[in-house]
Amino acid sequence: MNTVDLIIKKRNGKALSKDEIYFLINSYTKGKIPDYQFAALLMAILFNGMTKSETSYLTEAMLHSGKVIDLSFIKGPKIDKHSTGGIGDKTSIILAPIVAAAGVNVPMISGRGLGHTGGTLDKLESIPGFNINLSLKEYKSVLKKCGAVLIGQTKDIAPADKLIYSLRDVTGTVPSIPLITGSIMSKKLAEGVDGLVLDVKTGSGAFMREMKDAVELAGSLINTARAFNKKVIAFITDMNQPLGNYIGNWLEVYESIMVLHGKQKGNLLDLSLHLSGAMIYLGSQASSIKEGIEIAREQITNGKAFDKFVEIVKLQGGDISYILNPKKYPKSKFIKKIKSNVAGYIKSIDNYRVGLAALELGAGRKTMGDKIDPKAGIIFKVKIGDNIKKDDLIAELHSQSMDKISTAKEMILNAITYSKQKTTKPKLIKKTII
Amino acid sequence: MNTVDLIIKKRNGKALSKDEIYFLINSYTKGKIPDYQFAALLMAILFNGMTKSETSYLTEAMLHSGKVIDLSFIKGPKIDKHSTGGIGDKTSIILAPIVAAAGVNVPMISGRGLGHTGGTLDKLESIPGFNINLSLKEYKSVLKKCGAVLIGQTKDIAPADKLIYSLRDVTGTVPSIPLITGSIMSKKLAEGVDGLVLDVKTGSGAFMREMKDAVELAGSLINTARAFNKKVIAFITDMNQPLGNYIGNWLEVYESIMVLHGKQKGNLLDLSLHLSGAMIYLGSQASSIKEGIEIAREQITNGKAFDKFVEIVKLQGGDISYILNPKKYPKSKFIKKIKSNVAGYIKSIDNYRVGLAALELGAGRKTMGDKIDPKAGIIFKVKIGDNIKKDDLIAELHSQSMDKISTAKEMILNAITYSKQKTTKPKLIKKTII
Repeated sequence: MNTVDLIIKKRNGKALSKDEIYFLINSYTKGKIPDYQFAALLMAILFNGMTKSETSYLTEAMLHSGKVIDLSFIKGPKIDKHSTGGIGDKTSIILAPIVAAAGVNVPMISGRGLGHTGGTLDKLESIPGFNINLSLKEYKSVLKKCGAVLIGQTKDIAPADKLIYSLRDVTGTVPSIPLITGSIMSKKLAEGVDGLVLDVKTGSGAFMREMKDAVELAGSLINTARAFNKKVIAFITDMNQPLGNYIGNWLEVYESIMVLHGKQKGNLLDLSLHLSGAMIYLGSQASSIKEGIEIAREQITNGKAFDKFVEIVKLQGGDISYILNPKKYPKSKFIKKIKSNVAGYIKSIDNYRVGLAALELGAGRKTMGDKIDPKAGIIFKVKIGDNIKKDDLIAELHSQSMDKISTAKEMILNAITYSKQKTTKPKLIKKTII
Repeated sequence: MNTVDLIIKKRNGKALSKDEIYFLINSYTKGKIPDYQFAALLMAILFNGMTKSETSYLTEAMLHSGKVIDLSFIKGPKIDKHSTGGIGDKTSIILAPIVAAAGVNVPMISGRGLGHTGGTLDKLESIPGFNINLSLKEYKSVLKKCGAVLIGQTKDIAPADKLIYSLRDVTGTVPSIPLITGSIMSKKLAEGVDGLVLDVKTGSGAFMREMKDAVELAGSLINTARAFNKKVIAFITDMNQPLGNYIGNWLEVYESIMVLHGKQKGNLLDLSLHLSGAMIYLGSQASSIKEGIEIAREQITNGKAFDKFVEIVKLQGGDISYILNPKKYPKSKFIKKIKSNVAGYIKSIDNYRVGLAALELGAGRKTMGDKIDPKAGIIFKVKIGDNIKKDDLIAELHSQSMDKISTAKEMILNAITYSKQKTTKPKLIKKTII
């Protein structure tokens, strides 16, 4: 097979065969196709798309570029969740213990912060001692012991994805539905799960800002999951404002602890319950999502979810004293309250800018080499629809640098628009696709 | 400026600014943008095209990546011709002496064979001693002495084009009108000409098979030439059958000599006269293309064109004994006549396959490193519309290998279709754009 001919075939809008896709992925992973040819191919895929079958072959080829973990030795259902990423999205940390407490195994391989969004791994690492780099043996052992495990992608898991993702990042070929599908699903399928709950975000803080793109991505992910005989449920959820109030790594772990203690309500709790409920349902521990949600709520009320979280942290080497007594965690040098200088109903929040403001404060990486400050971030106090008076508290900024706080303050104040008329709160769960 | 942002801008269908295009071309030429990013950009350009202004800026940036030759020391008009390439197209060798004999300077920088088509440089090099690698000083000196010069692209001329062309070739990004325009025009503008005659081919042996693509390319080339204040005339011409009868390097020089002697008629003579006539008109030595054609014809009749050709060959180091006595040129080891095994009117010729057959015989390169056999090729005896009887002569194949002749024979016989009804001869000049 000739690489240029295959690029031209895709460029001309023709579908590539299974053999051709395997050839391209395997050759590229082995370094036999140069980056410049693969970059041209990626751009042609971005423009011409891929059929359902092509997307499945792509996922399969990427999946088989590495190891597929066999979890058949663990009894009972194994269900994971994937979110397309957002601002303040710490649901993984909340739902893993809830769902495990409800008797469904949660083997979870998560990612780092990407662009303006945070990453579950960075959040977990804010817990002193927490080890996200478990060996495959340890991964299986923790899962077996407590029913949940949270690690990062190892080099054995879908190495093709790691290579292709790096190339997409620098060639303007990130927002392609089949490429996103291959990237997400090759990793999730490698985990050895029976089913998957998908949280596809839409709105100003999401990668898929438009509803129609989110629906298209959800459809592609569902098709691919089904092609591999995996049970799947997708939610399209709102990302026009932060999820919960805390943005930043330790701040998000703190808020997760509050949710697990039943002390935090609002969109974060609601979404965590929906996702947990769907996972419990897919794991056959409930006869509907609704019943699953009730079971999830019970795990919070009866304290089992929090206990499970402590167990996970302990098994993965984390210092549980910070979980049991979160107030003892070190604070940022500067904590600055931002107040509103206008009055009115909050009409919109440019959530992308809020994400960038958190990055600015030290909660994320601007370039690959940057070190994250686990204490840094934002406590974002307001939601769309809130009636704000002048001097009301908008947010609290945490950082080691006053300069960074000044920059972030401007970003946040500029991110919010107001209206004299009452404004509508955005619907959290925009669509459920079963 | 950030390369990824510019790729994304073009990918999203926005026009790049002059500064952005200069940044991309200059940085890539200096090795500051990696091939994989430039490949993604090229594919985005192929899909989203470029505006007239973008195409001009691209051409200008590529032009200024190297030297622009100053020919102002030479009095009188300087006019060149560019053809998009075809089978048996040796018009450059014929028109350079004709037009120079008519008092118009012809500074010509040509290319090598590309794909299924031959190249003027390879043809000229079949003349023993002919040097196409003149220095800039020699180039100017030959032009000054005899009014015409034929060389290859030096490393000083539009180096960006050389780099970008190599990348396009291996990334499936060749057939893009703005990229083709930038490639052609950056080189032609570097020659220091006042005007340009364009021969854009269409049909089975052309790169632009469809008339509409040829018209679009011609329009883009004309726009760009005018943006640089160059006089320009474009012809869209037929490439559904070979131009003339001879295909292969020395064979084409031989046929050119026959045309210059007034001994060869048909589509090759007609096109050579049209292109020469337009050049003489653009060079202000005639008041119309028609008058230019008459002047061109005169240069053949009065022998001045042939004499000029001998002069050019001599000044560029070629052995003129072969020009004066072409029969003395060595012959191929095998010369095989192919006869028709059917009867009927010739309906179509797959001219692309005829080009590949010539390549097979040794007249071109299959890979970069291949050595050309200057004697090899085809004397193609028939034209569309001819009434063929069984056993009529179709072609004569020249090669050092009988195996190659067998392969080429099949290719040629399969390239021709016949009809019981009379068939129409294709119109040679399909469109003239002034």
